[in-house]
Amino acid sequence: MAQTMLSARIHEYQRPLVVEPVKMPSPRGEGIIVKVGGAGLCHSDLHLMNGEWKEAIPLALPKIPGHEVAGWVEEIGDSVPKGMFERGDLVAVFGGWGCGSCQICKRGDEQMCPIAKWPGLSQYDGGYSQYIAVPSYRFLIKVAAGTRLKPEELAPLTDAGLTPYRAIRRFRHMLVPGTTIAVVGIGGLGSYGIQYARMLAPNSTTIAIDRNDKKLEFARKLGADHAIRLSGSTRKEVKEITQGRGVDVIVDCVGAENTISVSVGLLSKGGVLAVVGLFGAQVCVPLMPTVINEYQITGSLWGNYNELCEVIELARQGKVKHTIQTFSLEDINDAINLLKSGQITGRAVITPN
Amino acid sequence: MAQTMLSARIHEYQRPLVVEPVKMPSPRGEGIIVKVGGAGLCHSDLHLMNGEWKEAIPLALPKIPGHEVAGWVEEIGDSVPKGMFERGDLVAVFGGWGCGSCQICKRGDEQMCPIAKWPGLSQYDGGYSQYIAVPSYRFLIKVAAGTRLKPEELAPLTDAGLTPYRAIRRFRHMLVPGTTIAVVGIGGLGSYGIQYARMLAPNSTTIAIDRNDKKLEFARKLGADHAIRLSGSTRKEVKEITQGRGVDVIVDCVGAENTISVSVGLLSKGGVLAVVGLFGAQVCVPLMPTVINEYQITGSLWGNYNELCEVIELARQGKVKHTIQTFSLEDINDAINLLKSGQITGRAVITPN
Amino acid sequence: MAQTMLSARIHEYQRPLVVEPVKMPSPRGEGIIVKVGGAGLCHSDLHLMNGEWKEAIPLALPKIPGHEVAGWVEEIGDSVPKGMFERGDLVAVFGGWGCGSCQICKRGDEQMCPIAKWPGLSQYDGGYSQYIAVPSYRFLIKVAAGTRLKPEELAPLTDAGLTPYRAIRRFRHMLVPGTTIAVVGIGGLGSYGIQYARMLAPNSTTIAIDRNDKKLEFARKLGADHAIRLSGSTRKEVKEITQGRGVDVIVDCVGAENTISVSVGLLSKGGVLAVVGLFGAQVCVPLMPTVINEYQITGSLWGNYNELCEVIELARQGKVKHTIQTFSLEDINDAINLLKSGQITGRAVITPN
Amino acid sequence: MAQTMLSARIHEYQRPLVVEPVKMPSPRGEGIIVKVGGAGLCHSDLHLMNGEWKEAIPLALPKIPGHEVAGWVEEIGDSVPKGMFERGDLVAVFGGWGCGSCQICKRGDEQMCPIAKWPGLSQYDGGYSQYIAVPSYRFLIKVAAGTRLKPEELAPLTDAGLTPYRAIRRFRHMLVPGTTIAVVGIGGLGSYGIQYARMLAPNSTTIAIDRNDKKLEFARKLGADHAIRLSGSTRKEVKEITQGRGVDVIVDCVGAENTISVSVGLLSKGGVLAVVGLFGAQVCVPLMPTVINEYQITGSLWGNYNELCEVIELARQGKVKHTIQTFSLEDINDAINLLKSGQITGRAVITPN
Repeated sequence: MAQTMLSARIHEYQRPLVVEPVKMPSPRGEGIIVKVGGAGLCHSDLHLMNGEWKEAIPLALPKIPGHEVAGWVEEIGDSVPKGMFERGDLVAVFGGWGCGSCQICKRGDEQMCPIAKWPGLSQYDGGYSQYIAVPSYRFLIKVAAGTRLKPEELAPLTDAGLTPYRAIRRFRHMLVPGTTIAVVGIGGLGSYGIQYARMLAPNSTTIAIDRNDKKLEFARKLGADHAIRLSGSTRKEVKEITQGRGVDVIVDCVGAENTISVSVGLLSKGGVLAVVGLFGAQVCVPLMPTVINEYQITGSLWGNYNELCEVIELARQGKVKHTIQTFSLEDINDAINLLKSGQITGRAVITPN
Repeated sequence: MAQTMLSARIHEYQRPLVVEPVKMPSPRGEGIIVKVGGAGLCHSDLHLMNGEWKEAIPLALPKIPGHEVAGWVEEIGDSVPKGMFERGDLVAVFGGWGCGSCQICKRGDEQMCPIAKWPGLSQYDGGYSQYIAVPSYRFLIKVAAGTRLKPEELAPLTDAGLTPYRAIRRFRHMLVPGTTIAVVGIGGLGSYGIQYARMLAPNSTTIAIDRNDKKLEFARKLGADHAIRLSGSTRKEVKEITQGRGVDVIVDCVGAENTISVSVGLLSKGGVLAVVGLFGAQVCVPLMPTVINEYQITGSLWGNYNELCEVIELARQGKVKHTIQTFSLEDINDAINLLKSGQITGRAVITPN
Repeated sequence: MAQTMLSARIHEYQRPLVVEPVKMPSPRGEGIIVKVGGAGLCHSDLHLMNGEWKEAIPLALPKIPGHEVAGWVEEIGDSVPKGMFERGDLVAVFGGWGCGSCQICKRGDEQMCPIAKWPGLSQYDGGYSQYIAVPSYRFLIKVAAGTRLKPEELAPLTDAGLTPYRAIRRFRHMLVPGTTIAVVGIGGLGSYGIQYARMLAPNSTTIAIDRNDKKLEFARKLGADHAIRLSGSTRKEVKEITQGRGVDVIVDCVGAENTISVSVGLLSKGGVLAVVGLFGAQVCVPLMPTVINEYQITGSLWGNYNELCEVIELARQGKVKHTIQTFSLEDINDAINLLKSGQITGRAVITPN
Repeated sequence: MAQTMLSARIHEYQRPLVVEPVKMPSPRGEGIIVKVGGAGLCHSDLHLMNGEWKEAIPLALPKIPGHEVAGWVEEIGDSVPKGMFERGDLVAVFGGWGCGSCQICKRGDEQMCPIAKWPGLSQYDGGYSQYIAVPSYRFLIKVAAGTRLKPEELAPLTDAGLTPYRAIRRFRHMLVPGTTIAVVGIGGLGSYGIQYARMLAPNSTTIAIDRNDKKLEFARKLGADHAIRLSGSTRKEVKEITQGRGVDVIVDCVGAENTISVSVGLLSKGGVLAVVGLFGAQVCVPLMPTVINEYQITGSLWGNYNELCEVIELARQGKVKHTIQTFSLEDINDAINLLKSGQITGRAVITPN
């Protein structure tokens, strides 16, 4: 095996990534080295490279970013249970590397662990590299042999394709026949959100809400029953669609003050507003209707390992529409520039091998 | 039976109630006439009498207020199933008179019914009267014979003693050993809240929070493990008590902007803030921590029939401390004045018979 | 309005029904008279007419049977809330007439009420008649205007089409992507069961199990992913389909000793076996695997009002396949004879108007 | 550090354990060496030593048994997150060593993992030894400093004191005020069960059921509201206590055919029978009442990590009564003989250090 691998690293904030040979990692204990098949490029990478998070997430530079990763098992640590993984297995990397022993991890929500580490956003290097060292086999999901899924399709499912899934899944018990679900903001997360709404709540009405007509058109193609412009008349239109009942579950993928204030006005009695977007500073809702109607306002963070297993299963069933654009590792700075200037449709995915 | 009964009625807003003889009602169909043993005086009665709600709740005056009622079965309508009630049965009146046929009523939350009527706050007369006409036996809870509970103790349980119960009960699955519950505002609702926290979450730590030292002292007597002044250092104290974990369930019985903003800062990961107080105009919480920690903010409205059955069962077991002050129907305007001037400890209850 | 209506009544057990004019009922209090559009003929009617249940359900003969009923509102009692129903409204009759005030009714499970009455199976007459007196508007479900659903399609949904719905719905939280649901016995209930499995768990694998190849073929047409003969090799086949995991939720519409003993061997860890069929005398499962794998064995009874609302909503969405054969009231004894001799495909429905 | 430790090992089935020096283990990767403070002696150890399980659990002899273990951290593997444990920390060993990456482990139920290993009952040595090698820090629960709990009290909580906890906790949402819980069989598990019933369902009535009057007397001391002999009149007595309603949750710690058949006759509508005992071969319940009343019959297996954390928290609060008898490692064969002949009250715990 080669002694070095090609990686893209941050050497200095606000500068292009440096694509260069780096020492190959070795698997330690229960760790596994994954040959990267795809690593999704996320807006949060832009914030990171730009140095905006250097206080919240202090990094020892140089650092390889990239937290949406899928690929193939390359080398297996000697504490990994025998027979669990074979070299060449297609795997998705679950990125919420919790401690594994607190009560939050033990109930399965490792992404919520107070000391969770994320690849490329902690002491651990990420996936913009030929190989990534995953510290434990417990963070890999093996994709069953014989699937037609490609790693570049898998990678975005581990973050953009996971977050709206959790937000909807947490409340699917409310989505009985005759109810309504709305997704606000039909960007990267929201376009997955519309799809999951159809899959998890096929007997509910699905409403897409956005400011942008093209995105509304896209939502209709993805299966939304209704696609409505965010405006002063949104409430009236929604009340008509729902015959006055309102929306039972709203997933807000924007999280701006105005999307939240419009959304809360759409809720049914007992309705849920789950915010996954982080655009605004505050969630403000009027007290009286919140109490009288028992509205539920909550945030939803990423997704857990089992939820990612379920997302991959849906993809395996051929139900998830992937909109991706691939780039070689050498072209990563081009991909970054296209993302910055809003010219990426769907998800840019780096394919280093 | 007498042709008239003594009742206290609003003839004009912002004027004292008029205590006068009124025509006795007769039971219709499945209705039941209850001889009033106790009718609690609530702050919302003050708002009503003061005309503050005359647009939200338009009333045909004169009207008998009083929505917290208990007493004895007096006369039984001819559609009431035989054998279900006997004259003289001690009953509590569940005040959320839903339609009984919408999906919300059918799942048991009649108090949330879009067309729910409340006695004394709708076309139906309330309990400041010797007798009250309850439109269906389905709104009565029979208290098992042999109890030592008195109707003047039962009456406040149907509202003040019910609202914090529902708020805590909805989230008691979260209150496993080692967690923490806080009640903010130790007034009428909060003092019941502290008691229910001890009963429903006996293996959790209970924290009382208020501005007023006397109320904190009262909370300690009711069983709070800790009683803390609402101030700039509340968060620090709570973090110490909970060893950095935060509070799992907070019931805010005030609902002011500042209690909400302090409360949300105390929450544990995944923690719930249930607001039952209506003092403020808005619920505002910071977006980023709400998403990252998956906080849940919700309102909680009154309680349902089964929850009231449970509250009465707890009272029957002798676990609920009642703090009441009784007044004859003739003295109702005195009671109102004492309530207005903050001179009632616990609940004022009118005993018209 | 006519003074009499045509009805089919039991005058004597083990004798044909007598079709004859009967005094029209009047609506009392909150009751409603429904003009019968369809009344499903059920095997339990055969047991009843045959006198098999005369001790369990003592009836004052003559009696009109028929507990699966839909039709149009004809006359409205004077205690029914104004505006809730209009003459001519298409309605389904929910047949579990609970007391409405016990804790079971109040949580919505009126069909479980200890003193529930069923039309045609109690002091109340049933639907084999031009009109039926429903004792409370709270037992009617109004079908939204503009639907293409016919009362003869609605009627079987209130019992045969409701029971498997509840059984699956209670456990749909377990049916996440990648899980498996099986329906055992593809008769009247089971054929609805397969359909609901596809609707409520569209991301799970659905397996139909029966002894009869024609029924297995029918199950495939209704959407089952796999249809397997009940035999010694069922377990092996299911283990292959589920890759060794087993079935997460099994609905047994037969309830015979052998279907139960086969079914329990198919369960996954934590799996549920919900029995709705009543063919056998006992449920016997081996202790050790039940404990080690935390199997859950439960019965499921009919369905509640809100579940029926959901079933009707699914039918309104055009998702339920109806297999019915209609008969005039005059021909009811022919229909009964065909049912007895196994010559009815799907459900026989009497259309008295 | 010493090169050897004293351990008690099975050399041959049906022979006494051999107490002898054994090579000290070293911690590997994320493993931790625990100095054993207490190791509970369990009936399953007798089965194991007797060779009854040699096919189900093939062991490479010699082997150190002992799966209920608590002690102090001795040596820490180099992959254990820094700062998580210190030498000398008091820890309980969670004994269900799951793979950590299947969906069952990931939702927290490692004891249900299809390939779970238990110390002393797998390739891993157990706790009848001065030291035990725990393969991952993820199986340790650190007991907060300053506790008065001793390791010999902690050890039995990890199995005997955990199993009834899980069984009750899974159904505590049903145990609202006014309901009833029964524990059948007041031996090792049942005596913990009565205590947990009081802690988790303090507003429910607790009934103890056993054949043995002494055990019933003990149950009363532990807080049971009623203690009833298992006999032909059990049902009648229970119906009286519950005013005809029946028991909402029954935990059967025996699991014999007759305890199950009596128990099912005691259930309320919708009631749960959770079997944790393994005395019988089959669970047989009558079909008709099971369906009509929607009984739920389930097994419950041991407990998970978070449930053990909660049990330890209850013990830390001083709420758990410990009945233990300690033995030095040298005397382990005496303890075994006493256990065999039924002369141990509560739990025998080996204290090797």
